Amino acid sequence: MTELRIAIVGFGKIARDQHLGAIAAVPGATLTAIASRNASLPGLPHFATIEELLEKGPPIDAVSLCTPPQVRRAQAAAALAAGKHVMLEKPPGTGVAELDPLVAMAVEAKRTLFATWHSRHAPAVEPARRWLLERRIRSVHIDWKEDVRVWHPGQGWIWEPGGLGVFDPGINALSILTRILPKPVFVTAAELAFPANCQAPIAASLTLTDIEGLPVTAEFDFRQTGPQSWNILVETDRGRLTLSGGGRRMAIDGNTFAEAPDEEYRELYRRFVELTATGTSDVDLAPLRLVADAFLLGKRTIVEPFVD
Amino acid sequence: MTELRIAIVGFGKIARDQHLGAIAAVPGATLTAIASRNASLPGLPHFATIEELLEKGPPIDAVSLCTPPQVRRAQAAAALAAGKHVMLEKPPGTGVAELDPLVAMAVEAKRTLFATWHSRHAPAVEPARRWLLERRIRSVHIDWKEDVRVWHPGQGWIWEPGGLGVFDPGINALSILTRILPKPVFVTAAELAFPANCQAPIAASLTLTDIEGLPVTAEFDFRQTGPQSWNILVETDRGRLTLSGGGRRMAIDGNTFAEAPDEEYRELYRRFVELTATGTSDVDLAPLRLVADAFLLGKRTIVEPFVD
Repeated sequence: MTELRIAIVGFGKIARDQHLGAIAAVPGATLTAIASRNASLPGLPHFATIEELLEKGPPIDAVSLCTPPQVRRAQAAAALAAGKHVMLEKPPGTGVAELDPLVAMAVEAKRTLFATWHSRHAPAVEPARRWLLERRIRSVHIDWKEDVRVWHPGQGWIWEPGGLGVFDPGINALSILTRILPKPVFVTAAELAFPANCQAPIAASLTLTDIEGLPVTAEFDFRQTGPQSWNILVETDRGRLTLSGGGRRMAIDGNTFAEAPDEEYRELYRRFVELTATGTSDVDLAPLRLVADAFLLGKRTIVEPFVD
Repeated sequence: MTELRIAIVGFGKIARDQHLGAIAAVPGATLTAIASRNASLPGLPHFATIEELLEKGPPIDAVSLCTPPQVRRAQAAAALAAGKHVMLEKPPGTGVAELDPLVAMAVEAKRTLFATWHSRHAPAVEPARRWLLERRIRSVHIDWKEDVRVWHPGQGWIWEPGGLGVFDPGINALSILTRILPKPVFVTAAELAFPANCQAPIAASLTLTDIEGLPVTAEFDFRQTGPQSWNILVETDRGRLTLSGGGRRMAIDGNTFAEAPDEEYRELYRRFVELTATGTSDVDLAPLRLVADAFLLGKRTIVEPFVD
C-alpha cells in the first residue's frame, strides 16, 4: 500500500488534540509537513502558509485543512489546483454555495474532496441508525450544551461572521441527526441568542420536522457550566433511544446497549485513505444547510456580552 | 388543449397586481377559484383556506401559491398530496432544505412543482445572458434599491423571521445574476442592517465571487426614496452591459439594445402550463441558497427602527 503523504494546514487545538494522533494510528497515512502561521512540530517540515507549502514543501499527496472555516475555501481551491486531495474539518465552509465549485474542481482533477463530519463516526451512531430503521419514530430531542470557555479557549474566530458560534458544536448533533433519521429533516423555526458583542449566537433553539410532520427539537447552549450534555433522545413505537456522550453511548429505555472507545478521527482518516485511492469525493452539505436555514429564518435576540 | 384549472391561494397585492392578469392572458390557463382569508373576487368560488378549497371546491388541476413564504410549504404539501400541480411565488420557501421533500413528493406523484423567479423572465435577461456568453466578464455590480413603503405597504410578514426583508426584492436580482453568469457564484462576505424592531434586514451589502475570483458586489436597500434602482452592471473585455428596470432594459456602453414590455408573469404561466403537461418540476434553489449564506456568514448591524 502506498502511503498517503498528508500535510496538516492550521495547527491549532483540533489538529493537536485529534488529527495528529489519528494520522499516526491509521495505516496508509503519514504526516509529512505542517503549514501554520505560528505553530510547528519538531522534526517536521514547517511552512507559514499553504502557498509556501505547495511551492517549496516536500512531495505530498493530500492536505488536511484544520484552519478556521473562514479561510478554508481558498486553501482547498489552492490545494486542488495543485493536484492534492483535500480533507475539510467541519463545518465544510462559511457558506453552502461555496462548496459546489470545489466539488466540480475535485471531480475535474480526479482528486478527493472529503467534507468530514467526525461525530458521524462516533461508535454508537451506526448502531442507532440501524435500530431506528426498524422502528416508527415519534419524536426527537437534542440537548447539546457545553462550556465554550472549556472547549474553545481563545478561539475568537468562532464569534466572527462565518464562525457559527454555538452551531460549531451544534452542527455535530445535526450531522448525527441527518445520519440516523430515515427521512430528510428541515428547520421550521429557530431562536438565536446573540451576545451584544458577538457576530454568532451563543445559544439556539431549533424546531425541525420532516415531510410526515415528525416533531424534532434541539437546544444548543454554549453557557453550560457543570455537567455537559451531548445527547439525542429518540422516542419510538418500541422504546426510547438515548445517544449520549456525543454519540459514544447508546441506551434503549435506559439500558446501555453499545459503548465503545472514541475512534472518530481514525475513522475519518481511514475513510480519507480509502477515498483517495480512487479520487472519489464525499461532500454532504445537509448539516450546514440546516444551520444556514436556521440563520435565515431564525428569530434573533440579543443577550449579555460574552467575554472569554 | 385542455385548460389548466388554477386556484390562486393568497389574494394579496402580488396576486391582484400580477397573477390575475397573467392567468387571464395565457391560453390554456383558467382561474377557477380563490382561497384567501379575507379577499375574494366577484363571480369566483371563494374559500377561506387551502384545505377548504381542496375539500369543497370545484375541480382544479393546480394551485398558485401567492401567500407569504412562511405558510407556503405546508400549503404546497397539502396541494401535492391532493394531486394538484403547484406554482410557488418567490422565494420558494423560508428555508432551503424544506424544498427537497416537496420535490420528492412532486416527482412521486408525477405532478409539477414550479418554483418561480419572475425576474428571470424580464425581457432583457435572455439577451443579456447570450451577450455575456461570448465575453470575458471582469466584474459585476448590482444596485437594487427601492422604497419599501411604496412597494410593500402593510406587508408586515416581510419583517418577521423568514420574511427576508430587503432580500425579498434583492432575491430578484440574485435570480437574474445566477441566470446570466456562466459560472456559479457564492457569497464571501455580507453586511446586514437590521432595524432595531425587525427580524429581517432593511439593507444589505454582499460580496460574491466564482471559482475564478470574479468580483461581484451587490447593494440592496429598502430605504430608497426618489429614483428607484433595479440595475445590474457587468464590465466585460468588450464593453459594459447595463441591465436596468429590473431586467426590462439592456444597454451596451450606454446604448439601449433591447427594451420590451414586461411579460414576466405571463411567461411564468406559459411555462407552468407547459410543465404541467408532462408533470415536470422546475425548482432552482440557487438564489435562495445565496440569501441563506448571506444570513449565515453576514455581519449584522442594528439600525434605527422601521415604522411602516
